[in-house]
Amino acid sequence: MCIIGLGQIGGSLAWALSEKKNRVIGISRRKETVEKAEKMGIISKGFTEITREALKESDIVILSTHLGLYNEILKKIRGFEGVVSDVGSVKSEFAKICKKYGFRFAGAHPIAGTEKSGLESADPKLFENKICIISGWSDETSKRKISQIWKYVGSKVMYLEPGEHDELLAFISHLPHAIAFSVVQASFKARMKNKEVMGGSFKDITRVAVSPAEMWADIFAENSKFVSKAINIFISEIKKLQKLIMSKDKEKILQYILESKEKI
Amino acid sequence: MCIIGLGQIGGSLAWALSEKKNRVIGISRRKETVEKAEKMGIISKGFTEITREALKESDIVILSTHLGLYNEILKKIRGFEGVVSDVGSVKSEFAKICKKYGFRFAGAHPIAGTEKSGLESADPKLFENKICIISGWSDETSKRKISQIWKYVGSKVMYLEPGEHDELLAFISHLPHAIAFSVVQASFKARMKNKEVMGGSFKDITRVAVSPAEMWADIFAENSKFVSKAINIFISEIKKLQKLIMSKDKEKILQYILESKEKI
Repeated sequence: MCIIGLGQIGGSLAWALSEKKNRVIGISRRKETVEKAEKMGIISKGFTEITREALKESDIVILSTHLGLYNEILKKIRGFEGVVSDVGSVKSEFAKICKKYGFRFAGAHPIAGTEKSGLESADPKLFENKICIISGWSDETSKRKISQIWKYVGSKVMYLEPGEHDELLAFISHLPHAIAFSVVQASFKARMKNKEVMGGSFKDITRVAVSPAEMWADIFAENSKFVSKAINIFISEIKKLQKLIMSKDKEKILQYILESKEKI
Repeated sequence: MCIIGLGQIGGSLAWALSEKKNRVIGISRRKETVEKAEKMGIISKGFTEITREALKESDIVILSTHLGLYNEILKKIRGFEGVVSDVGSVKSEFAKICKKYGFRFAGAHPIAGTEKSGLESADPKLFENKICIISGWSDETSKRKISQIWKYVGSKVMYLEPGEHDELLAFISHLPHAIAFSVVQASFKARMKNKEVMGGSFKDITRVAVSPAEMWADIFAENSKFVSKAINIFISEIKKLQKLIMSKDKEKILQYILESKEKI
């Protein structure tokens, strides 16, 4: 197997597989990352470029880079006859590009990881007891092969169509991130610069705002339609609450809050 | 000193003071709470009703109940000649009611506490190294007395006008809570009921949605003006991001995210 990109997710997957005595090839543009991964036993062998040499031992290639690099990478490995997979947060685009280049493929999205990034934050136990969504595949064999990998590293596998996946994730992950970035801006506008005074709720909501910017720019752009829809639905909800707040009608505000609490 | 309301904040304050060998009278409507607090040494003596008897030993009374009960309680203790204080999340209203009844007063708002509630979640170390905002006072002596209590239990004291306090808190605490309640509703609307799949960012943002509903209905109603303003500013910010997302312009989306990250 070959993993392209040795950040938190790619590094953790490589590590989990290597710990179980599998041979994993790793590719990262940064030489220091490759060297570190080799030294720590996270990968068996590393490369800094995507070449035939790097792929020749592998029958599965897993993309673990920013979504924005997919097209370039898949173009480069055109003709690869094994199964192509990824770990990205948006699934429609991956399936589309794979089809375009004629790959056998099965997309995956492990619901794991923290706001940190890079190999330093990799953890071989990252996927244990976490959900991994398998989404978009060319054939049953590819789907089964990729599912097995994620089960093997301890994840619970579920299956969703790429469109369903992207809509679901827009609500449960992309929307909260969009909110985090916007809340920071809104609060700053209010000249609210006294960081010492910030309570737990503000820290909660903005924790994820430290996530890698490039990764999120890619996700928002690639899942544009559903993220925008989620923002619309969210705005109409918060406006409803705002209207109740402006009316100062405690009973109705309470009702709204209680309804939310029931749904958590 | 007498503390009215033995929830997380009132209970923790009573406990912190009792640990330092101070005599604290506690009042709670629930008999079991009073008995538990007495048994655990959180208070020296407890009452289930606000009576002259309950207040006669105290020269400071601290309200630690929902905001919605302030008027009723303060009406009941009219004529009390000591200093009245509170721990509430909105400060303009407390000052207004105290003035109406002619009390000596100094409002306080410890920026501490979790989403939990009740005496079970009290902790004598809750206020250590936390900010406590003193906001709205009738005279310097009252202000000094109340400040001393919070410094004594380990808090860093800062001073703000009630209006400033309420606007600041609208952004850093009330807005994140309004968002949490609305996000839950929005996600539910999208038939997003698969709770297992929810990632860390969704859990972060909705953690506070379990906070006591009545307390939040009170806060929203009492700080209606500033919370509504904060929601407006936030909506205009997230709409700005939404517009960039809809344009799929990765560079501009990235720019927005980077600006947010700088401000955290």
